[in-house]
This record gives sequence, structure tokens and C-alpha cells, in this order.
Amino acid sequence: MDIFTTSGTHAAQSATLLADRERCPDGTVVNISGVSVGGSEVVVMAGPCAVETRDQILQTALAVRGEGARVLRGGAFKPRTTPYSFRGLQEEGLELLAWVRQETGMPVVTEVMDTRQVEQVSEHADALQIGSRNMHNYALLDEVGLTRKPVLLKRGMSATIQELVFSSEYILKQGNEQVILCERGIRTFESSTRNTLDLSAIPVLKKLTHLPVIVDPSHAAGHWWMVPSLAKAAVAVGADGLLVEVHCEPTNALSDGEQSLSPDHFHTMMMEIREVALAVGRKIAPVGTQTT
Amino acid sequence: MDIFTTSGTHAAQSATLLADRERCPDGTVVNISGVSVGGSEVVVMAGPCAVETRDQILQTALAVRGEGARVLRGGAFKPRTTPYSFRGLQEEGLELLAWVRQETGMPVVTEVMDTRQVEQVSEHADALQIGSRNMHNYALLDEVGLTRKPVLLKRGMSATIQELVFSSEYILKQGNEQVILCERGIRTFESSTRNTLDLSAIPVLKKLTHLPVIVDPSHAAGHWWMVPSLAKAAVAVGADGLLVEVHCEPTNALSDGEQSLSPDHFHTMMMEIREVALAVGRKIAPVGTQTT
Amino acid sequence: MDIFTTSGTHAAQSATLLADRERCPDGTVVNISGVSVGGSEVVVMAGPCAVETRDQILQTALAVRGEGARVLRGGAFKPRTTPYSFRGLQEEGLELLAWVRQETGMPVVTEVMDTRQVEQVSEHADALQIGSRNMHNYALLDEVGLTRKPVLLKRGMSATIQELVFSSEYILKQGNEQVILCERGIRTFESSTRNTLDLSAIPVLKKLTHLPVIVDPSHAAGHWWMVPSLAKAAVAVGADGLLVEVHCEPTNALSDGEQSLSPDHFHTMMMEIREVALAVGRKIAPVGTQTT
Amino acid sequence: MDIFTTSGTHAAQSATLLADRERCPDGTVVNISGVSVGGSEVVVMAGPCAVETRDQILQTALAVRGEGARVLRGGAFKPRTTPYSFRGLQEEGLELLAWVRQETGMPVVTEVMDTRQVEQVSEHADALQIGSRNMHNYALLDEVGLTRKPVLLKRGMSATIQELVFSSEYILKQGNEQVILCERGIRTFESSTRNTLDLSAIPVLKKLTHLPVIVDPSHAAGHWWMVPSLAKAAVAVGADGLLVEVHCEPTNALSDGEQSLSPDHFHTMMMEIREVALAVGRKIAPVGTQTT
Repeated sequence: MDIFTTSGTHAAQSATLLADRERCPDGTVVNISGVSVGGSEVVVMAGPCAVETRDQILQTALAVRGEGARVLRGGAFKPRTTPYSFRGLQEEGLELLAWVRQETGMPVVTEVMDTRQVEQVSEHADALQIGSRNMHNYALLDEVGLTRKPVLLKRGMSATIQELVFSSEYILKQGNEQVILCERGIRTFESSTRNTLDLSAIPVLKKLTHLPVIVDPSHAAGHWWMVPSLAKAAVAVGADGLLVEVHCEPTNALSDGEQSLSPDHFHTMMMEIREVALAVGRKIAPVGTQTT
Repeated sequence: MDIFTTSGTHAAQSATLLADRERCPDGTVVNISGVSVGGSEVVVMAGPCAVETRDQILQTALAVRGEGARVLRGGAFKPRTTPYSFRGLQEEGLELLAWVRQETGMPVVTEVMDTRQVEQVSEHADALQIGSRNMHNYALLDEVGLTRKPVLLKRGMSATIQELVFSSEYILKQGNEQVILCERGIRTFESSTRNTLDLSAIPVLKKLTHLPVIVDPSHAAGHWWMVPSLAKAAVAVGADGLLVEVHCEPTNALSDGEQSLSPDHFHTMMMEIREVALAVGRKIAPVGTQTT
Repeated sequence: MDIFTTSGTHAAQSATLLADRERCPDGTVVNISGVSVGGSEVVVMAGPCAVETRDQILQTALAVRGEGARVLRGGAFKPRTTPYSFRGLQEEGLELLAWVRQETGMPVVTEVMDTRQVEQVSEHADALQIGSRNMHNYALLDEVGLTRKPVLLKRGMSATIQELVFSSEYILKQGNEQVILCERGIRTFESSTRNTLDLSAIPVLKKLTHLPVIVDPSHAAGHWWMVPSLAKAAVAVGADGLLVEVHCEPTNALSDGEQSLSPDHFHTMMMEIREVALAVGRKIAPVGTQTT
Repeated sequence: MDIFTTSGTHAAQSATLLADRERCPDGTVVNISGVSVGGSEVVVMAGPCAVETRDQILQTALAVRGEGARVLRGGAFKPRTTPYSFRGLQEEGLELLAWVRQETGMPVVTEVMDTRQVEQVSEHADALQIGSRNMHNYALLDEVGLTRKPVLLKRGMSATIQELVFSSEYILKQGNEQVILCERGIRTFESSTRNTLDLSAIPVLKKLTHLPVIVDPSHAAGHWWMVPSLAKAAVAVGADGLLVEVHCEPTNALSDGEQSLSPDHFHTMMMEIREVALAVGRKIAPVGTQTT
């Protein structure tokens, strides 16, 4: 962990971090209800930004499952910059996720935003997502650390790689070893993308920690047409998975429609990243895969 | 609110924001147990980063009170980048704050980090601080919005001014009108300071909103010797108050000692900012002031 | 120079930098044709972004001189992001500056952008400005280092304080000891200001170097109405001077009109900063001062 | 060019930019003495940061040529943050490049830093590099625009994509149509890499302009061990070429040794990126290729 010692500050601690690569040189494999993240397969997690209706979530789930996505993503509780934006269906959204999970057999990952929701969300979801805005919410990290659900920890919008590792340490320290890290773009001066996807973070995180690392190209780009290119780059750089926004009808999405792929564009992306995965010695689930 | 309309996105909402300057052209004055923030006085809030011991907090409180500080700051729950750092005395810290408050008559502001702590912290504190790391913690904003305690909302480390205003809107929307905004430095590439203090935010926030705006020069600088200069600049630029870290023995502080002023340096700073306050038509409480 | 040693890289060199504070603990005073920068006076340099016409430059010069500005600024060669914008009057602009200098007795500072222009610009100007975009143009730094004209070196838009000092070193190393540093805002994610004025740079630069440091609030803000507030903050934080854009008719300016003060607003600003200067033990030239 | 119109400012100009994709929908192919950049081949340009000795440049050139590199890079004039660092062999470096070019048949790209050097460098080099620090040096852009040499224009350390396009416009406007854009990492708060490689810039630039776009993973990473991963990502995302630092003995390099690949590591990288190139429908010159 020589990178960290340049800062001088945390040299002592880093020697004993639970996330340290040296503790598990072959890398941790996280199991999301039967789907292995961190192994030879590059796992695609896809779905809408927010759960909106029964039809929307089912159609989208079937579409992405048919293309080889292995995990369904979808937000019930949505962190929004203003209190006047759509904040998700809340409990109703959780129930729709539980229902579509049964219909499709796909494990579900969804965001939890409040320590008081952790129990409830854990009942319905196969994996808990900590969003960028909550990467420094230590009370929440402690709380999901007490569950035995896999945790998908997204890098804060302006968090350093080191801080992301330290946040994962909060979860690991509570005894939950099922942590997946997620690069999703950082805030910079550049304005033609929503955020700047920091793909260098993947080799750095792989060197420093034994945790699986995935990439969310949708939030980074902010424009759907960039997503396939960035997804290919993420696979090439060594990501263990992708988190991609797909909506059955992007133009009607209640949030983030501009960055959501349609099923057709998702199909093309999956064909393309399969080639790249093979080129770097990985594989992606074939078309028509069922997860159960 | 013409600045926001340049982004195009939030034009519609901004017209009706509860924080909008037009709703209260003369500016809101927030009352922290008798201390007015947002009026003609520039209010100094001072104290240690963390409450450590009975002696430490009392000595520091008496020292800053004697120099004209009007509110005591001190952390009981401390957000720390790693789980291995000192995380505050927790409940014991709250009790020490309640005790020192009674001993000195100074109102107390302290941070709350978890929705489940809001009630407890509200019982002991005169004002609730939302730290930088939680500016986007919307569940917490909603919760403090339901109390009737003044809220000190710090700008996120990489939040835009617009996002800070939107976060204040979460609190206002719940019916709590007692919100103070705080600029405390943003994350940039510059490394000779801990963060880059964005003093331009003060005139911008004053133009956009009717809320009082204070400045925390200590966290921005990261080095105590810069604090007096930045404090003078903050007063000159129009801040309604300052949040300053002072420790009776900085070299023995359990956290942030490097950026804490000693009582002697605090004395000098207070003398200097009094002159600047007068130069811009404001005033600062004189030496020896009692708040009750 | 302990700040720099944290980076580890330049420890050895920093010990011997020509700009090091230790070489001149009382600070260097730079002389711009009779105007001392770095002494007890806070020197105001004002004028239009670009020289446009004989009338415009003369009117503006007389207006700012009457309010206590001591040096006239004005661009003949303008660096512009696109080649289709107004790039300045070039040679004609230099001649107008030389003329107005004689008419008003004000020393003139203007930008030089190309090694091949240094000789020509030196003939007409009292001080040479290196703009932000050229702070890393080492050939140009070498070249102005060979003249004996005072050099106003602006911090690059995304240059660290350390890099600014190293750039000044290029000039000093050639034997030119008349260097003034200028903070003018850095590039960050914040978009309600054109750049983020980094006023912390002033105490840092004062501690590290013996060179005078001035502040350009106009380019940092990008909006004229913020300029007076930022100017007050700059004086309070310890700047040795200000570089302010003033235009006799801002709405008709060929460049940067939005951030230029009208003579009326400049008058108000000067009245205000005079008070702040006194509060911090400095002074500003009175209304009606003549520089010769 | 809808991305640019969000800023509002440059909508009018962007419609007529010479770099606009619409002027050449199939993309421009730049010819560096027989090597086509912008066609189906992903062109690798490799070599040392600085030309040091006859042996060093020849050995490195032979090593990279043998692996399929098509263009030799090497600095004679080196922009350095401090004037006390090695600034390149200057004229002697140019002569060594001319010599090694004849020995190996490889076209040479090298940096030009001063308008007064453009003629001399043009005599020895096949392509002129404008470094990051000079992306805003408009006098230099004008000057290389007057030559008929291909220009490799690197993105400024904190330049937006839009500004990079505008800088290319300076060159195109002078009549030089042979411009290659280069993404090389931008300055952010992240410190575990030297800069943050912004691979999203490639799809954005490809959509906006008709110019070839290459990627420099070495300067972005700052650590040689990340370079192969980032090179794979760059090829996957759609780059037309790579600019890679290789040194026959990295540990003895006079500059940037830490980010230079050894010939062995370069060999591995080339094998890997060939696979990725095929996966995205491109190709890379085979081992043992001669460029003439």
C-alpha cells in the first residue's frame, strides 16, 4: 500500500486495514444470492434509476435479463438534490422490487439512505447500495456493516480513492465482509459530462484492496450515448462488473432518463462488451441467461 | 435568482424556493437561545473540535467567552474518515456540553450525524450542526427540519452553492425556518491548505437567499496560523458569523489540533476582527461579554 | 518552507529558492515607475480589460486615477479562448497605452504573450503582465526575466501555490528581482463564479516568499457586483494590492464587460476598501491622488 | 454540437468551427511521414520522456519499433515546473532525434515550446507536439498553424474539452489541417494518480470534431504499473492512438522514470492492447513492423 504512505498520515493504519490486498491476495468474491462478483465473470447489473410502475420494472427486468444482466438495479428511495424532485416510491417501490425479483428470479440491489431503513430494505433486497452522497455517512456504514447482506459502496462524488477504502473499512470492521466498491465518476471542472469517470481508480483499488470493483458509466457520463464506450473501457481496465441504467422507455423516465439506455442500445452494448471481456480474459453471461 | 437559471435545470423551482431572498429581503435573523445571527453583530462561535474532558471544555469555554465568543462549539459525535480514529465521547460528550452550558451560560452548537440521534442531541444542544459530510444526507435534513432547533448547515466539501441552497430547502420545507448556512472550504487540487475557502460564496448566498451565512476558517485552512487572516477576510466579505476551533492546549488535542487556535492567538484574532467589523459597519461582542 | 516539504519532492530545492522568505524577511518592495508595491500602501491597479479606443482608455484612466488608483491596467494583446473573439488592438493598443500614460502620468501594466513581443512591450509599459494562461510558459518567463521591468505574474487557472512560486523562480533566476505575484481565482467545480478566488493563497505566499502579492477579484468573480466584497476581503487578508477591471461604459466593453466596474461602482469600492485597509494597519491612496 | 450550446456562450461560433464533425463526417486522417492517424489502425507512439544520450534514444527506439510502435516520441525541450530540473538537451536533443530517425526509419514527434523554436524544430521533426502547459499559448498555436507539419495538441491540465477544441481551431484557422488531439489527464483532487485520465473525453471529442484523438496514459497515471490497464481502456473507448513513455532503463531516466515502461513491460502491453483493438474492430501494427 505504498500509494497511501505518500500522504504520510495513515501509514500506520493502512498496514492493518481489513480491506488490504495482502489479507486476501486472490481477491474476495462477493455472492449476491448466487451471483459471484469478483470472479472470472464480469457481472452486469442493470435496471432503471427509479422503480416507477409494475409494468416498467417488469419490462425492464425482462429486457436486461434477456441480454445477460445478472442483477437488477432499481431505486425505491431516491436521494435528490432538491426536495421538490421525485424521491422514489419508497415502501411501495421496495414491494415492487420484491415482486419483480420473484417473477424474474433476478437478485435485486437497491439503495438505502437512512439507518432506520436498513432492516426493512434488507428484507426485500439481495444487496444494499450506499449511494455516493452517503459514502461519508458513517452511521449508515456502521449499520449496514451489522447486516449480512452484500453492500455495494459507491465512491463519493469528491472522495479520494483512499477515503473510499476507509469507508469500506467501516463496514468490514462490523463483521460484514461482503463489500463491493463502485467507481461512478468524480466531480471536476469538466462540464460536458455529468462527472468525470476515473477509470484509473480500478487498477489502484485492485492493487490496494481485495474487494471487487465495479463501474457505473451511466452516472458518470450523464448522456446515454457515451455509456457503451465507457462500459467497454471499464471492462478493458479490469472492472469486475458494471452498474448500468436501462429504462424500457427512457424518454418517459421520472429521473435520469437522459442517461438511461433503451433495451436496444443495451443489447448493442452487451454484444460489444462481451468481445472486450474475452480480449482481457474475462467473460460475460450470454444472451438469454437465467440467474436461477 | 438569475445565477441559477444559467444552468437551465432548476429555473422553475428556484422561483418558489423558501430560501429565496425575495421572500425576506431584509434577511432572516436566527435566534440561538438569545444570540441573534444575521443581524448587525458578527457572531463568533468558538470551541474545540471535540469535547474531550470536563477540564478541557470548561477551560476553553471560559477562554473564548472572555474574548467575546457568543456560542460554544464542540463535537460529541465526530465524523472521521477512518473507523480507527477518535470518534468523540458520544453521549458522554453531550452531557459535558450540557454541563458546561450551565456553568458558562453559553449556548452550545454540536453536530448530529444520524436520524436516530436527533431527539437526544436536541435535548442537550441549542443548535444542531449538520456537517459537511452530511449535507447530502436528506433523511437527516428532513429530521432536523422537524425539530424547532436552529440548524447550522455546513456546505459539503464539494457541493455547489446551488446544492447548499437546495439542502437548506429540505429543512425549511419541514417547517423549520431557523437555518444558518456555513462556508467551510471546498475540495480543490490545491494542497497547501486543507480545503480552499470559497469566500465568494458569501456574496452569492446573500444575494440568493435570506438566510444568515457564517464562515469556518479553521477547517478550510487546516493550519492555525492562517485562521486570523481568513477570519478577517470573512468579516470583510460580509459573513454574519465565524465558527472557529479553539483548544486550551492545541498540541494535546485529540483531533484537529493543528488547526486550533490557542487562547492567546484567539485573543489576537478577536482584537483584529473587531477592527475589520467596524470598517464594514458591523460589530463584534466586546471582551468580557456574557451571553446571559 | 515547511508546507512544501510535505510533498517530499522539492524539499532540496526549496531550501535555496530565490523567492524564499528567509532571503528577505522584511519583504521585497517592487517599484513600478515610482509606485511602491509591497510597502505599507495597498496599491490599486485599475483599468479596462482591453484597450479599445483613445476616448475609452483616457476616460477610464482619468476616472480611476481620480479615485486613488495608482497604476493603469489595460490589455493590448488579449489571450482569448477562441480565435474568433476580439484579440486586442495589438501594436495600436500599445501606442494608446503609451499615449495615455503620458497624458495622465499613470504607470501602465499590460500583458505580454509571446517571447518575440517582450522587447516591444517593454518599451511602452512600466510593468509586464504574465497572464494565467502563460504561467507555465517557461520560455516567456525566461525572457521577461532578462528584462529589468517589474513583472506581474498571475497564478495559472489550475496552478498550485507551489507552482506559482516555482514560476516566479524562473524570472528571479535570470536576474530580474522585480516580481509581483497575483492570485486571480482557480478553476473548481463551482459555477456561480467564473473562478474560485483562493484568498488563503495570500497568507501562504506571504509566509513562503518575500514577494509582494496582489489580488484580481474581477476575473475570479466574473460578475461586477461581487468585486467590491471580494476586494474588501483581499485587503483584509493581507494583499499588497488589487488589480481591478474598470470600464467607462461596461455594457459596451468589447471583452469582460460583465465583470467590469463602472466608475461609480469603483468609487464606492474605493471608499469601502480604504476603511478596511485602515482596520488592518495599511493605507490606500486618497481620492484625487496624482502619481507623478 | 449540442453539448456546447448548454453553456450558451459559444453557440454561434460552434456552428462554424473548422473542427466541427459535420465538416468531415468520416473523420480526418493525419499523415505523419507515412503513418496514418485516424484510420482503422490504432497508432502507438512511444519513446522516452527526454532524449538523453545517443545510446539511450537508439536502444529505446529499436525496442519500441520491434514491438509495433510506429512513431518515436522524445523530448529535446522539456517544460519543467522548476528552473532547477533537467530541461532537456535542447538543440543537441533535436540532432539526436534527427539521427535516430534516420537510423530506424521511425517518424519523430517532439515538443516545441517557443514561437522562436518552431522553424528549427520543424526541420528535425515529423510532427510538432504542443504540451499541456502550452495549450493556451495562442501565439505558439498560431505559429505551428503556419507550418505544414502535423501537430499533436495535448489537452491542458485543467482545460475543458471545449477549450481544447477551441485551441485546435487556432491551428486550423491558420491553414494547417493536420491536428491530432491528445487526452493526457486532468487535474483533480485525487492524489493517487498524477492526473485523472478523462477517457470520456474521447467519445465527446469524436462526436464534436473530425480530428483524430489519442491518449497519453503515462502522464495521467504517473506510475508505470497502471499504464497497460489504462492503455487497454483507451483502445476500448475508441482512441486512435496512444502516446506512451518507454525508457530502456527507467530507473536511470533523467525525468519521469517512475511512469516509464521498460521494454519488457511495453512488450506485454502491446500484446494486450492488440487483443482489445481486435475486440473493438481496430488493429495495431504487429511485432517487428518497420515503418518504412
